[in-house]
Amino acid sequence: MHEHTSTLLTDLYELTMLNVYVDSGMHENAVFELFVRKLRPGRNFLVATGLEQALDYLENLHVTPEEADWLASTGRFSDTCIDYLRELEFTGDVHAMDEGTIFFPDEPVLRITAPIAQAQLVESRLINLINYQTLVASKAARCVIAAGGGRQLVDFGMRRSHGSEAGIASARASYIAGFDGTATVVAGKDFGIPIFGTMAHSFIQAHESETVAFSSFARHQPNNLIFLIDTYDIARGAERVVELGNELAKQGSKITAVRIDSGDLVEMSHLVRKILNDGGHPHIKILVSGGLDEYRLADLTAGAAPIDGFGIGTSMNVSADVPYLDYVYKLEEYAGVAKRKRSAGKSTWPGRKQVYREYNDDGTMRHDILTLEDDQQRGTALIKPVMQNGKRLMPSPSIEAVRKHVSEEYKRLPANLRRLEQVQPYDVMVAESLRQLTAEVDRQIR
Amino acid sequence: MHEHTSTLLTDLYELTMLNVYVDSGMHENAVFELFVRKLRPGRNFLVATGLEQALDYLENLHVTPEEADWLASTGRFSDTCIDYLRELEFTGDVHAMDEGTIFFPDEPVLRITAPIAQAQLVESRLINLINYQTLVASKAARCVIAAGGGRQLVDFGMRRSHGSEAGIASARASYIAGFDGTATVVAGKDFGIPIFGTMAHSFIQAHESETVAFSSFARHQPNNLIFLIDTYDIARGAERVVELGNELAKQGSKITAVRIDSGDLVEMSHLVRKILNDGGHPHIKILVSGGLDEYRLADLTAGAAPIDGFGIGTSMNVSADVPYLDYVYKLEEYAGVAKRKRSAGKSTWPGRKQVYREYNDDGTMRHDILTLEDDQQRGTALIKPVMQNGKRLMPSPSIEAVRKHVSEEYKRLPANLRRLEQVQPYDVMVAESLRQLTAEVDRQIR
Repeated sequence: MHEHTSTLLTDLYELTMLNVYVDSGMHENAVFELFVRKLRPGRNFLVATGLEQALDYLENLHVTPEEADWLASTGRFSDTCIDYLRELEFTGDVHAMDEGTIFFPDEPVLRITAPIAQAQLVESRLINLINYQTLVASKAARCVIAAGGGRQLVDFGMRRSHGSEAGIASARASYIAGFDGTATVVAGKDFGIPIFGTMAHSFIQAHESETVAFSSFARHQPNNLIFLIDTYDIARGAERVVELGNELAKQGSKITAVRIDSGDLVEMSHLVRKILNDGGHPHIKILVSGGLDEYRLADLTAGAAPIDGFGIGTSMNVSADVPYLDYVYKLEEYAGVAKRKRSAGKSTWPGRKQVYREYNDDGTMRHDILTLEDDQQRGTALIKPVMQNGKRLMPSPSIEAVRKHVSEEYKRLPANLRRLEQVQPYDVMVAESLRQLTAEVDRQIR
Repeated sequence: MHEHTSTLLTDLYELTMLNVYVDSGMHENAVFELFVRKLRPGRNFLVATGLEQALDYLENLHVTPEEADWLASTGRFSDTCIDYLRELEFTGDVHAMDEGTIFFPDEPVLRITAPIAQAQLVESRLINLINYQTLVASKAARCVIAAGGGRQLVDFGMRRSHGSEAGIASARASYIAGFDGTATVVAGKDFGIPIFGTMAHSFIQAHESETVAFSSFARHQPNNLIFLIDTYDIARGAERVVELGNELAKQGSKITAVRIDSGDLVEMSHLVRKILNDGGHPHIKILVSGGLDEYRLADLTAGAAPIDGFGIGTSMNVSADVPYLDYVYKLEEYAGVAKRKRSAGKSTWPGRKQVYREYNDDGTMRHDILTLEDDQQRGTALIKPVMQNGKRLMPSPSIEAVRKHVSEEYKRLPANLRRLEQVQPYDVMVAESLRQLTAEVDRQIR
């Protein structure tokens, strides 16, 4: 399982189609767009994420000699096809929404314009890369909004993410969406995301007592003083933190926080807050974790529980209520001729598209207009060129810049879309020019 | 995102605890067990999967010089800790259930016995590796059972899997559970899993007509004759396949199948079957795909629709109804002393455990007995030594052998557990010796 970035991480049909295109001399440009067909219940908006990894993938697209030999050994492909793959690189153009942009169904987040063999081949991995990060960022956005600001949010969920890449990608996507950091160390190393973590219950249990465990931790991790207090008895745990805090105060150091990972978090946070305050440690924060999602966050926040931060795990990392999006990658044009899919329940809008967004006077989003690329509309065009002839047009924005863009998008989000429950969908209008092209394409289908 | 197998793919708290263990001289053996706390609604049994990758991970456990330098640069760890990490290798023992074994809550699928710093460090990635494959294999098992045998099942879902590793792991896990193959090319290369795939709708659309597209495909992929017939009009698509089939028959070659990816699959499969039969091609099979899961499979099978195979995607690859398991990794013993967790709602059984399984006369599973390793019970012991001092005790079984083991497990599965709906849980009894140890541990907790 070491081939994660291999170009062979694709569906076989991409290669069999490529074989036919290469052998039959179909080398014209195809235009494919990546979009979500519809919102699934539980999501009022989505956050475009994963473009950075998609561009990395395209810039590095290649087949190794060993992979080409293996493909040849399957007997499935012509010699011409294998030779084409040995020389493969991505030479096309990419248009995309900025990472961190809020978007809606039918709006392309990415457009590929490339010789059809290339444009088709990259379908599976592009969806795979962008679907997952969008999924997590959109779930994390709901957590950020539900937490209401001023409370720390940390990604705790790598262990139940679906594999290694998901563990790392969810740290990135949730940070972009406004989380404060992650427990996943390698995401700190690779992306510069702040990392958090101190101790598990097993650490307490391995010591002869909770007191000894706390003291040893304080001695050997003196700059990381967060204590897990629910291994045996939460009140006793909090009292021991007070005692230790008094000891440490003599040496001039301060305990940062306690963490509670079980029980009734409202009741326990009030109890612990009182113990800490009565013990003279009002500055020690209370962090909680364990089975949290945006609904629990909203409850805890509404109930004014004295909680300063949340560790959010599994439910966000697998986007438990909506574990996939209806992302598709569809042919919109080949050799200059617009195309669309008409299969029952799966029809699409043809042509190269653009999305214009208009805003209200208070800066909130009013509506979007889906139209053709060459049909100028009022508002801000969301889809921009990012790669030409296989090369990035500009350096990618930093992760901090993307995170800032998302925070600005939240301010533009209409109030009703911020709600956790399903609301009236945001208005995405289809321009007349796009409707006309659609009718025209339908007349020409044989 | 290229650090998938890095040892830094872990939670920070594993490293901060390791720091304390190393600096405070806690080098005694710890025993951790990996198990599922409870079944979530929609699952009556689970299939143990992922051991192979877990052992690979442990055998290769190391920190690169560059990673160690980065860790040092964070200022979070002592020099002793960094030096320990530079020399890190896994020197412990592993006991586990055979891959492919059916198991239930509270039953350990894996036990680690190692110096506590090592045993703790590997927690996050071990859960990450085993949780996901178990999740997919257990979902795929339901699909296999629902499809009822005799129909082809192929994994189509890499694109909406959560990242690259999930795409590959789901091909492996579903094949082990009885699928016939996958669309994911690299899974064919890495694991020898049969791969399947021909064309997408875009292929049809890129040609001037469906007829031209079919002909070109037949010419350039002559050994892979499966045609997607729902791009425009399913009946016309089927008629074109008949026409092409008649042409190809003159050259002595035969069309294998058609695929339908939209519409009412029952109605359409009957319609297409009739067209193919009337056209003299009763041997052409009908494959279907699009939004399938075990419930749709059961419906289609029960309705006797003339369907010969299924492409199963997203719902299996993300285990959509149950996108995570309640897998945990808990300290059961340190320095020879049994331990257990007692946090509210999260308590565990202490000590090194064994699972005995008894069978009825007809070979079906009667009940399991959860007990201590040294407490012999009737039945078959499911947990076996697989790694000693960091080295595998035997070569891993082939993927085909694991797949065969699963198929035998299905025969032993009680009839009620084969149902898709939730049933009375399988009986896992707790032996008296384990209850006694638990009481003893509780008396000693301070």
